[in-house]
Amino acid sequence: MTDQWNTAITEIEPNSVRVRGYDIADLMGHVSFGAAVYLILQGELPSQAVGRLMDAIVVSSIDHGATPPSVLSARTVASTGATLSASVAAGIMSINKHHGGAIANCARQLGRIIKRVGGNESALDQAAAAELAELKSNGQRMSGFGHRVHTADPRTSRLFELAEHAGACGEHVAAARAVERCFAKAGKKLPINVDGAIGAILADLGFSHAVMNGLFMIARVPGLVAHVAEEQDRMKPMRRVIPGQHKYDGPAPRSINDDKQ
Amino acid sequence: MTDQWNTAITEIEPNSVRVRGYDIADLMGHVSFGAAVYLILQGELPSQAVGRLMDAIVVSSIDHGATPPSVLSARTVASTGATLSASVAAGIMSINKHHGGAIANCARQLGRIIKRVGGNESALDQAAAAELAELKSNGQRMSGFGHRVHTADPRTSRLFELAEHAGACGEHVAAARAVERCFAKAGKKLPINVDGAIGAILADLGFSHAVMNGLFMIARVPGLVAHVAEEQDRMKPMRRVIPGQHKYDGPAPRSINDDKQ
Amino acid sequence: MTDQWNTAITEIEPNSVRVRGYDIADLMGHVSFGAAVYLILQGELPSQAVGRLMDAIVVSSIDHGATPPSVLSARTVASTGATLSASVAAGIMSINKHHGGAIANCARQLGRIIKRVGGNESALDQAAAAELAELKSNGQRMSGFGHRVHTADPRTSRLFELAEHAGACGEHVAAARAVERCFAKAGKKLPINVDGAIGAILADLGFSHAVMNGLFMIARVPGLVAHVAEEQDRMKPMRRVIPGQHKYDGPAPRSINDDKQ
Amino acid sequence: MTDQWNTAITEIEPNSVRVRGYDIADLMGHVSFGAAVYLILQGELPSQAVGRLMDAIVVSSIDHGATPPSVLSARTVASTGATLSASVAAGIMSINKHHGGAIANCARQLGRIIKRVGGNESALDQAAAAELAELKSNGQRMSGFGHRVHTADPRTSRLFELAEHAGACGEHVAAARAVERCFAKAGKKLPINVDGAIGAILADLGFSHAVMNGLFMIARVPGLVAHVAEEQDRMKPMRRVIPGQHKYDGPAPRSINDDKQ
Repeated sequence: MTDQWNTAITEIEPNSVRVRGYDIADLMGHVSFGAAVYLILQGELPSQAVGRLMDAIVVSSIDHGATPPSVLSARTVASTGATLSASVAAGIMSINKHHGGAIANCARQLGRIIKRVGGNESALDQAAAAELAELKSNGQRMSGFGHRVHTADPRTSRLFELAEHAGACGEHVAAARAVERCFAKAGKKLPINVDGAIGAILADLGFSHAVMNGLFMIARVPGLVAHVAEEQDRMKPMRRVIPGQHKYDGPAPRSINDDKQ
Repeated sequence: MTDQWNTAITEIEPNSVRVRGYDIADLMGHVSFGAAVYLILQGELPSQAVGRLMDAIVVSSIDHGATPPSVLSARTVASTGATLSASVAAGIMSINKHHGGAIANCARQLGRIIKRVGGNESALDQAAAAELAELKSNGQRMSGFGHRVHTADPRTSRLFELAEHAGACGEHVAAARAVERCFAKAGKKLPINVDGAIGAILADLGFSHAVMNGLFMIARVPGLVAHVAEEQDRMKPMRRVIPGQHKYDGPAPRSINDDKQ
Repeated sequence: MTDQWNTAITEIEPNSVRVRGYDIADLMGHVSFGAAVYLILQGELPSQAVGRLMDAIVVSSIDHGATPPSVLSARTVASTGATLSASVAAGIMSINKHHGGAIANCARQLGRIIKRVGGNESALDQAAAAELAELKSNGQRMSGFGHRVHTADPRTSRLFELAEHAGACGEHVAAARAVERCFAKAGKKLPINVDGAIGAILADLGFSHAVMNGLFMIARVPGLVAHVAEEQDRMKPMRRVIPGQHKYDGPAPRSINDDKQ
Repeated sequence: MTDQWNTAITEIEPNSVRVRGYDIADLMGHVSFGAAVYLILQGELPSQAVGRLMDAIVVSSIDHGATPPSVLSARTVASTGATLSASVAAGIMSINKHHGGAIANCARQLGRIIKRVGGNESALDQAAAAELAELKSNGQRMSGFGHRVHTADPRTSRLFELAEHAGACGEHVAAARAVERCFAKAGKKLPINVDGAIGAILADLGFSHAVMNGLFMIARVPGLVAHVAEEQDRMKPMRRVIPGQHKYDGPAPRSINDDKQ
């Protein structure tokens, strides 16, 4: 019996590290992290515009303050004296069906709408309506629409703008817009949210559903590191981490244009 | 007793998500993920050149094939039927003192050399020699120099090139070079490795030691996601994940210049 | 909106800790850990015989040497310098559908056989045969029968002996025996294994399927603690943990009767 | 180079599983889980009285309601749709220096008092006073004394009673009592708490400090399983798990003598 196994991700040889065939030293300085993420997950380098879109996608989800369960579990674990890596891991473990999962769920549901259409573009709104009706009759909800806090999330329009520019908007984005129209017709204010937009765009870029939650993890780790570092730096051990009891005391609103960039 | 607590990272308001004061929607498309990582950890936006350097740093550590313990534990956990997030978390939990830790250790040791110098540049080589001698007499080793596989890691020179260009090379990079000279004088081939280079550069950029291992986590998560996805996709459950028994069967070596980018 | 929530497990009051209504100080010295596990998961104290059976169940699964993925991931994480708790947690995270999961799977499948019988005891063998046929036609396997290493696992007969003595053998155990007869009739040597026996007994004791994998975790944590402690004590950091490359160098076989007990 | 490694915990052979030399099938039904835990961690079977003491120790820490950070992180992770094993693992990851750590800390501090005495029993109170004075001057606290909620924890006296009966009280327990006297003399009501009692007893039983936190994990896993199962069963996904906002709604206080046991 042989226990040999294969991997198609990275080839290590003396003085050479090649990701999907490309020397990392060549990638460094030439492609952004977003493009490298696309490469390692999809197997090919994206165009420059799609690389920038990938950066925008992960930037859009880098943090969402102190309310998500991933932050609360990471901080709770950190407060017991855990290491940075164990605390961040507890945050990652919180990214599941109900947290971050809307991305893949929305992509899957949009995929079902596309199947209903069967190539007939004009039937998109009908297909969306049929899907929503079926979801409702099954007691389910469409993922990726509406938001507890944000009614007009500026991240969403920005994402679609960049996706449009990158030529990345395909049938999933179209289906997402059809769903939005459907809701509007029914008098419901349920705009696409940032998860829905990411799900639609990633699906149009050809990402598998299985990996979409992974993109959310990639995006969110810097936020988790920042929260754990802040917990270790500013808070007393074993404090009670009360959700919603926090106040923001960081820099006041400022604009990119204010500074050198 | 109040349980109110403060956080200075991200401010959430209806239709606004501000990281360290900047609206995420404005950051999207304008800054790369590397720059956003710098912002969320350091509190300020980097210059464009430093932003690109940050991308290069995280790209340099995005994956190192199937041998690191983080990959082996992530794949072992995945093989039991664990979710993507639990498997990736097991990988993150493997990033500690002995895996990824050389970055902060090297930065710390370079800091001690700098302290020895006390401002007198010309004394740098002497200070490095003194530090190495003390480490040796304590049975300790200098972190971030030499590598099991790579004798002349192209990632290292690329990192210094980009750091030079970004004006980011300061006294830690100078101290690292002094250590390298010291080793060479003693007839030892122990060049700065990629961890040592990152440690020196991050220290010169002002990152705290506490957060450096976090940067390695941020860099490595895409690799972990790719490995777990491959495990779930290609391997049988409950297989024995034998370290070192793998073969690369991905794309042949290719160059960025081959394609559209 | 209120965020109040309820829990029915343990009531804490000054100088009183009550688990499911019983003062822990009263339980201490009067009930074994196995009985306390039954109490906290089932809500009631077991009879003395069932308490002893519970101890036997968790003792039976306390460790299975250095081959299970839970041990390999715990040791791999430990080798990076992780804490005891992070390493043990990585082991726990490996207890899933394919590792430990046979307990609940077997219980579920036995439950389906019982449903087929519909009260008519004499039809049990027919029902078992029908279930096995259906599993086969769906490309599935019966969980909890046969073992890679053990053909006549002494733990299994011991468990049934103790379960018999405790009056705990019900229709699930009967169904498990019917499955065994079915396999034997077909000329297949697939005896009930330790997971199958535990699944059948726990189901007859009224444990929910959801909690069965938890019992395996409870049982296995001491083994994981012992393996991680040994790793930290005897092994070099960052060693390659090669599955199957280990040798046992502990005490020679000995018998309880040899000593004072 | 060989990658062979050794383990002294469990020997697996066809139809035989031996823990520290004893066949598990023989242990089952003859020793309680507490005794098996002692065996796997210490290498030898305990006397029956010490076996019962071990059960009492783990029973004493099986759960402490819904306030500890291990429960809060486990429930927070569970609320995102995580599996039982990932949620329990998040709980385990919370057992560190500040949560469960008092056991080993207290044992260590008592050990320092014993060293001060140097065999001269009568000097114990002086040694305890000296240790407390030194701790105070270093801005440190004695671990394992006093409790936020319990002023006269019935678990503590019960533990000492059982330890006395098992002949397990040695110099660490004596030192703990000396510390208590010291505090009393100074007019401070800081009785030994349950962690301090466990630390003193485990140290007298010869457990290493490194493994003591592991005993707390072993004890607490059933509680974590029960809390996660309850969360999955009774609560809505993504609810905010507010510490301290819970109410107990389980069985009313009842006594072991009420029932058949």
